[in-house]
Amino acid sequence: MSNSKIPKATAKRLPVYYRYLRFLADSGTQRVSSTELADAVKVDSATIRRDFSYFGALGKRGYGYDVRELVDFFKRILRQDRLTSVALVGLDSMGQALLHYNFRQSNNMRISAAFDDDSKLTGTIVAGVPVYPTSEMETQLRDQQIKIAILTVPDEQAQDVADALVKAGVLGIMNFTTTRLNLPKTVRVQNVDLASELQTLVYFLDNYGDKED
Amino acid sequence: MSNSKIPKATAKRLPVYYRYLRFLADSGTQRVSSTELADAVKVDSATIRRDFSYFGALGKRGYGYDVRELVDFFKRILRQDRLTSVALVGLDSMGQALLHYNFRQSNNMRISAAFDDDSKLTGTIVAGVPVYPTSEMETQLRDQQIKIAILTVPDEQAQDVADALVKAGVLGIMNFTTTRLNLPKTVRVQNVDLASELQTLVYFLDNYGDKED
Repeated sequence: MSNSKIPKATAKRLPVYYRYLRFLADSGTQRVSSTELADAVKVDSATIRRDFSYFGALGKRGYGYDVRELVDFFKRILRQDRLTSVALVGLDSMGQALLHYNFRQSNNMRISAAFDDDSKLTGTIVAGVPVYPTSEMETQLRDQQIKIAILTVPDEQAQDVADALVKAGVLGIMNFTTTRLNLPKTVRVQNVDLASELQTLVYFLDNYGDKED
Repeated sequence: MSNSKIPKATAKRLPVYYRYLRFLADSGTQRVSSTELADAVKVDSATIRRDFSYFGALGKRGYGYDVRELVDFFKRILRQDRLTSVALVGLDSMGQALLHYNFRQSNNMRISAAFDDDSKLTGTIVAGVPVYPTSEMETQLRDQQIKIAILTVPDEQAQDVADALVKAGVLGIMNFTTTRLNLPKTVRVQNVDLASELQTLVYFLDNYGDKED
């Protein structure tokens, strides 16, 4: 079955499953039950079994899932065998932290170019990543065939920079600004709003006695 | 009606609504339709109307919602009138970026204490926030009555530090580590997994032609 038939809620959980399965494989665990998985990744076991069934990965009753098989399987699904290059635009402290972070937990994504107009940074290499002036953004993105960008510019520049990214062929943007971007429907935006996440946590603590979802 | 009857999916959207409404109020806008709101915050208008109806905030047909009334209303709901103090544990580059970020978009939360064992940092003030050695964590959290903490320690320390936080009375943790924390049910954990979010974006671009959810 084609991956495009997988519900998007399921798709969002795949990286979480994969990370934990890789941890199990690294620590020599050979099999895992959906209940153990559920406990570790905080997703209920019925949901896990349903998610896995979309891929035809069926555990055996009384045995569970073979860890190595699942890891190999998710590696293919998530294209872990292929490196995806990502651009980062805007080197404020969050941008710089993301450069150092460089998604090191994952082995298939890498920030390979950063853009900023701070003349102290352009032309240098920060945390292994070359920093270009934004005037070179379009050329570099096209030359390096980068389709995904992380946006950490000041809010008031966000829309203009996003427009330029799209013009240069970017199809996915991880947006750390609080600007809600207006972009063509062909571009996927993932908003990361840390203040709202923290505020939600405050709200839940004020209003709910438990942590169920 | 009590806030605790509000669906949690609705609760998660409240900070997003509030931020945009405040922006409208600041720019002098007096009224807004659910369609305009929908377009700005990328939530469909039927969902917005249903969300608002939980609070008895009903727009008038052909008029929409009164922006000032909604802002005042959300301010009460989200307790924007009261400052919530938050602790940050672990001053790697991400921790330091969060200190500088200090949730400045929001006016009701503030990181008021940071903890780390780097002797170059302890006893100093970074981005306006005092940095204490972790040996003082329990005392400081109790003295300052801090109930919410941001966890940016190395993964292998995450569980131990989280246990110590809970022992000191913390009820909510924003977890930037990739460790899935095992904590009492009374503690709410919000996992922020930037690598998985980016991986999900890559996956969607590979498998879906559009950006619908």
